[in-house]
Amino acid sequence: MPVNLNPPSKGDLLTVRGVLLGTAEAAIKKPDRKDLLIMHLAPQSAVAGIFTRNRFCAAPVVVAREHLASGKGVRALVVNTGNANAGTGDAGLAAARATCSEVANLLDCGADQVLPFSTGVIMEPLPLARVIAGLPHCVGSLREDNWLDAAHAIMTTDIVAKGASRQITLAGKTVTITGIAKGSGMIHPNMATMLGYIATDAAVAQPLLQQMVRHAGDASFNCITVDGDTSTNDALVLIATGAGDAPAITDAGSEAFAKLQAAVSEVAIQLAQAIVRDGEGATKFITVRVEGGSSSAECRQIAYAVARSPLVKTAFFASDPNLGRILAAIGYAGVEDLDVQRLKLYLDDVLVAEHGGRAASYREEAGQRIMGQSDITIRVVLDRGAAVSTVWTCDFSYDYVKINASYRS
Amino acid sequence: MPVNLNPPSKGDLLTVRGVLLGTAEAAIKKPDRKDLLIMHLAPQSAVAGIFTRNRFCAAPVVVAREHLASGKGVRALVVNTGNANAGTGDAGLAAARATCSEVANLLDCGADQVLPFSTGVIMEPLPLARVIAGLPHCVGSLREDNWLDAAHAIMTTDIVAKGASRQITLAGKTVTITGIAKGSGMIHPNMATMLGYIATDAAVAQPLLQQMVRHAGDASFNCITVDGDTSTNDALVLIATGAGDAPAITDAGSEAFAKLQAAVSEVAIQLAQAIVRDGEGATKFITVRVEGGSSSAECRQIAYAVARSPLVKTAFFASDPNLGRILAAIGYAGVEDLDVQRLKLYLDDVLVAEHGGRAASYREEAGQRIMGQSDITIRVVLDRGAAVSTVWTCDFSYDYVKINASYRS
Repeated sequence: MPVNLNPPSKGDLLTVRGVLLGTAEAAIKKPDRKDLLIMHLAPQSAVAGIFTRNRFCAAPVVVAREHLASGKGVRALVVNTGNANAGTGDAGLAAARATCSEVANLLDCGADQVLPFSTGVIMEPLPLARVIAGLPHCVGSLREDNWLDAAHAIMTTDIVAKGASRQITLAGKTVTITGIAKGSGMIHPNMATMLGYIATDAAVAQPLLQQMVRHAGDASFNCITVDGDTSTNDALVLIATGAGDAPAITDAGSEAFAKLQAAVSEVAIQLAQAIVRDGEGATKFITVRVEGGSSSAECRQIAYAVARSPLVKTAFFASDPNLGRILAAIGYAGVEDLDVQRLKLYLDDVLVAEHGGRAASYREEAGQRIMGQSDITIRVVLDRGAAVSTVWTCDFSYDYVKINASYRS
Repeated sequence: MPVNLNPPSKGDLLTVRGVLLGTAEAAIKKPDRKDLLIMHLAPQSAVAGIFTRNRFCAAPVVVAREHLASGKGVRALVVNTGNANAGTGDAGLAAARATCSEVANLLDCGADQVLPFSTGVIMEPLPLARVIAGLPHCVGSLREDNWLDAAHAIMTTDIVAKGASRQITLAGKTVTITGIAKGSGMIHPNMATMLGYIATDAAVAQPLLQQMVRHAGDASFNCITVDGDTSTNDALVLIATGAGDAPAITDAGSEAFAKLQAAVSEVAIQLAQAIVRDGEGATKFITVRVEGGSSSAECRQIAYAVARSPLVKTAFFASDPNLGRILAAIGYAGVEDLDVQRLKLYLDDVLVAEHGGRAASYREEAGQRIMGQSDITIRVVLDRGAAVSTVWTCDFSYDYVKINASYRS
């Protein structure tokens, strides 16, 4: 069950002027579930994205990057679940292009103005005919207040739909930001098996939007790990329709830019944390914060070693304060000149280890008390600088194995 | 249950002249099990070792390295299970030194001629009094034919004892090599939670022995992974007593050196593979062989990405040929210029993927047939050079989580 995560209600996800969303049940993998989404964007919308760095990136990632780079102006996004269209060679590329063409026909735009996305099983042919057959229903159901349906339509092993909204005021005008995401396993940055779509009715020049999405991704989806696997299909897309009333943002140094960037990042962080809270088999949400490092890179390296360790994660599942496993993970993180005598390890506010061993003040009961919680912070203080890095992860349970041993069935 | 792994019988483990072994039940963690071992070596024995690279290396590792470096000549090794004496600060160092002193008293040698080793739970104080109390029984039971007892005395979560022997002929004389090892989880190279002790009655100069143990470690224990965690305590020790009849080996270019090195590596590989076959919760033994690389480093990088992927490992547990997960792991291994169009993926002799996607000839039934086996080879052909790397791993099951969620209880 998701850890302290309530699914959004329809009213929680605010409409964004200039974005229409329509879904369909196309039976791509299984019948009777929403598995196809079209997002239709107002003309002049700016779109920016960051994508998986997996070398086996999926066909839709190749095509989406290509269409974004064409500079033609994106008018639609199309997302299917149930099949990743990855590891599918030339046929997969052709299927992704055919999907775009069909969307373009239906919406009267260029095929290169459509960005395709897929998520699901890898190395199986995309059932193109079923995708194509489902598209008219998506178009027929396009509405501004369809964000919750859209969040449902992109789910795979997710237990709950993920969405978040914020509103800010720029030059006296209300600006809305709404995002949805999917993902619950194969989650590790750059990117994870996650798709995220965030839209705002602000007007933002494309290069600034690219900067904003990179910043939001680094602060959110690139700080989470569920199982250390990095997917073939991940993408985070940021849309600025410019259909609202606020004046256009054209200066990355402006207050308006900073304010919007902060709000977009907040939405991204909420979505990213929701993915971890809904991590496959998760029973605990764990924040790993490494501070006092000589660089944020070394903090991150240590944070990920702890957050990825199956031994640490199974100990948290068992609520067993077998915290030496955290020291072992810190030790093998690869920071060669780390002085383990200087570091301190805390579980929430409890000092667990210092001077290379268990703290004199530490009592097993105190560790046990924290381990019983569903939200826990592991804090490592390196005492060698001022850098900080935070990573969010979950524990590792029987159900992770169960879910992933039976994913295709 | 261990995968196609039979425990050695007493007769399988040949005695090595110059090595006496004695064990005790010292109740270090639990009563009524052998948990303490002394290996007593003939004078003039040469000893070489490689140790964990974990920055939180255990107190006994620090002391063993120090005593080896003293050049005094090692006369004894002492190994306890049930407690790793890691993350124990200065008190841990003192406990390791006290153990050596007591062994030295009992065997009439210098404390710096004793190497200490520990394995078990991290960050709990070593119960020194119980260790000390058990040592006389170890000494009292020292025998040449005690290798199987010794293999039992070093086990932690191992289901079966691990040992192997070889004999070769050098200059007409029989040379014996016998090794034992422990380990079944927290297994990842440099090193794993593993302890390995290999002894031969050949005479080998110490610098050559160091070269030989490094070679054997790289060919064996540094090629396995169970869960990607690297321990605080790992060590592989190679002992050459010189108590046999073969002439001393003093030239690393000699045929005798090559022959002994090959036999030592064979023993090490058999022990390392036994650790994977007895991997926590393992139901399958998987060989990941990456060939045709431009460097062995990149082959190794890809092999480990596949071998460590929880998604790949759970698919093998389920006997589900969800082989796109292997492509995804290859893709995120970090080989930036990898051309996925050129690589081929095989499961045993079945071509699964080529040209960036599923092979035209591939049939699910063929994949399913291989996945049903208990020994499986994943072969990745990169087609960009002549380098090769092989890694051995196991699948990821409910029982891995179960074992590690309850390790301390």
